[in-house]
Amino acid sequence: MRIIGIDPGLRCLGWGVVDAANGRLAHVANGTCKSMGNDLAARLLSLHTQLSEVIARHAPEAAAVEQTFVNRDGAGTLKLGQARGIAMLVPAQAGLPVAEYAPNAVKKAVVGVGHADKRQIDHMVRLQLPGCAPENADAADALAIAICHSFHAASSARLATAIGAAS
Amino acid sequence: MRIIGIDPGLRCLGWGVVDAANGRLAHVANGTCKSMGNDLAARLLSLHTQLSEVIARHAPEAAAVEQTFVNRDGAGTLKLGQARGIAMLVPAQAGLPVAEYAPNAVKKAVVGVGHADKRQIDHMVRLQLPGCAPENADAADALAIAICHSFHAASSARLATAIGAAS
Repeated sequence: MRIIGIDPGLRCLGWGVVDAANGRLAHVANGTCKSMGNDLAARLLSLHTQLSEVIARHAPEAAAVEQTFVNRDGAGTLKLGQARGIAMLVPAQAGLPVAEYAPNAVKKAVVGVGHADKRQIDHMVRLQLPGCAPENADAADALAIAICHSFHAASSARLATAIGAAS
Repeated sequence: MRIIGIDPGLRCLGWGVVDAANGRLAHVANGTCKSMGNDLAARLLSLHTQLSEVIARHAPEAAAVEQTFVNRDGAGTLKLGQARGIAMLVPAQAGLPVAEYAPNAVKKAVVGVGHADKRQIDHMVRLQLPGCAPENADAADALAIAICHSFHAASSARLATAIGAAS
């Protein structure tokens, strides 16, 4: 299964694509969409265009988006919410199922603890995806979200098999 | 000039279209887009699809979106931000300029004071757009946003003319 992870942000939106098969992970690509334009509508449109191109180019089968902290200032939460609306919309428009993970669930899946810093995430992403060099911290976060989803998807598949065998 | 006003909301997004020409206003249409679907991505996609259809049907030349209160709880602000991202994106995708107005600027333009309640807005929208029956309070708000934009656009045009005549 090919998964795209997305770390939403209005200025810079990170994305990372991985292939997951039989418990193995492989890096496909990663990068960032940087919003351009003089007003909010133009910036959101620019994120939409760039992320749509990424999905068309790499053809993922599932998407996972990081849930956003809401304990910052209201104006910051609103900005992030607007970018997050685009990050959820684009894969849905492409017909992909879109999962959501809280930041500490992503860190726990990738680093083993829920309070890892950005350097630890970058390090563990490189370890789990040999040959991968994340463009920056946002792209590393996005790859971590994709890895997190691969673990959850594999657990769900094993559970479904076990239930099927037991019934 | 044909203007669409948009009152963003994740559950229910109000819209209203007016024609403004030579200081006169005419009601074109109003309604609401109600989000459908089991998860956030599906609900955002449903808002995007419905609002795109409204813009294709009524062909406005400019859009105005209400700015959002950010002094509520963080989770509420985030939800509204996500819907607002879609409300700004759709007209931008259609090539329209997208203006933003704070709620008290809208109330002041339509009712004359910045602290009007929903019944006053509904009443003044009906007075200023003869024959108009807003579908509900969200649609009335959206029409008020469109009226507000028509006043600002007319002021800007008069100012440009005055500057042109003086120079």
